[in-house]
Amino acid sequence: MADAPANDAPYRLIDGVVFGEDVRVGSFTNLYGCTIGDGSRIGPLVEVQRGVTIGARCKIQSHSFLCEGVEIDDEVFVGHGVMFINDKNPRATTETGELKTDEDWQLLPTYVGRRAAIGSGAVILGGVRIGVGAIVGAGAVVTHDVADGETVVGVPARPLGDGR
Amino acid sequence: MADAPANDAPYRLIDGVVFGEDVRVGSFTNLYGCTIGDGSRIGPLVEVQRGVTIGARCKIQSHSFLCEGVEIDDEVFVGHGVMFINDKNPRATTETGELKTDEDWQLLPTYVGRRAAIGSGAVILGGVRIGVGAIVGAGAVVTHDVADGETVVGVPARPLGDGR
Amino acid sequence: MADAPANDAPYRLIDGVVFGEDVRVGSFTNLYGCTIGDGSRIGPLVEVQRGVTIGARCKIQSHSFLCEGVEIDDEVFVGHGVMFINDKNPRATTETGELKTDEDWQLLPTYVGRRAAIGSGAVILGGVRIGVGAIVGAGAVVTHDVADGETVVGVPARPLGDGR
Repeated sequence: MADAPANDAPYRLIDGVVFGEDVRVGSFTNLYGCTIGDGSRIGPLVEVQRGVTIGARCKIQSHSFLCEGVEIDDEVFVGHGVMFINDKNPRATTETGELKTDEDWQLLPTYVGRRAAIGSGAVILGGVRIGVGAIVGAGAVVTHDVADGETVVGVPARPLGDGR
Repeated sequence: MADAPANDAPYRLIDGVVFGEDVRVGSFTNLYGCTIGDGSRIGPLVEVQRGVTIGARCKIQSHSFLCEGVEIDDEVFVGHGVMFINDKNPRATTETGELKTDEDWQLLPTYVGRRAAIGSGAVILGGVRIGVGAIVGAGAVVTHDVADGETVVGVPARPLGDGR
Repeated sequence: MADAPANDAPYRLIDGVVFGEDVRVGSFTNLYGCTIGDGSRIGPLVEVQRGVTIGARCKIQSHSFLCEGVEIDDEVFVGHGVMFINDKNPRATTETGELKTDEDWQLLPTYVGRRAAIGSGAVILGGVRIGVGAIVGAGAVVTHDVADGETVVGVPARPLGDGR
């Protein structure tokens, strides 16, 4: 384990992150309370929230957002501009008009299996499992589990060849 | 009214913004000439352009872009990576090849009603009204008005249950 | 040619970029090894990779990502949050589990013709040609070539009027 990224880069906010060896982190990034495995690469303009786990030898590309509740296994590719979600009914406020706090919602955890690849611009809803070696097409909106080795595309995402 | 956000955070560009009380603004943000109501939260990596109005107790999440002409009522949730649009025929240049200026296009205003929620990765075309309490699904592309309390999903966005 | 943007702005990373005259570049940007023509505008929160060529009088809007292999002709509009892709089978690692390097993949070049306009939130797969004056709708996922003057929309992108 290391207590900092392996590279220097300006304009990074890093707070309470557990780094593996040889992790590289780009600029304009906001990482806090997460764990990032050996050899992984985090691109610029990325936010990774508290409690996220990223495995070893992953690539998380620019403009992506990984929210609390996301677990990424080893050797996963997350493309550019990928958005993860962890809330089924996001609202700014409670029904009585107070800003929602951590106690006002149920976190939906998401798991991405080893060697999976998520295309750029994809959106991953909360509570899904993306299988080992699965592929999510660019721009897909994933609303259900993706089986091991399966490729899904479209909005909502469906298996490739499934009537398309 | 306050003349600055309630929180400190590095790497923010804030120019001519009217803040309500207790507004919090994340890092890597570019806010200018807009108005943000009491208690609202602006995430990191967000741009808000001149003339935008954001109500009270809203959450504008990371990686989102709010363009001139957008009016957001109170208690609205704007997810991560949401893009608003205000131009029907965007082009870089006029027909004579000059860079377009403010006089070369018609601004299409967009209104988002109280307690509406816009899912992550959604795109909102110019000139639409998103109703009070409406929900826009993650990754939807909104091309028409959304009624009060209605939920829309898909590309283009259609009411949930409408043949899907 | 100039050796720097025409404007000042904080929080920019600019390395080995060839600038035309009067190019303006926003903040929170990461530009390296690319060429940008006279009068073009690069918005905030944008990354442009090595080897990209951007013509004259273009607008590249906020939150967009232009990868190696992208060639943008003159007077092109690239909206907000547009993601280009240059790899058909993105993976984090090789089959033997090593992080992929420049030698482990084939770059798919993309060309965008003069006066084309790409809507916000669009995703452009690698290896496509977007024709002169073509329009890509907001949120479209472009998987095939777009003819000169053609308008495409949807996921996957299809010509407007083609059964939609």
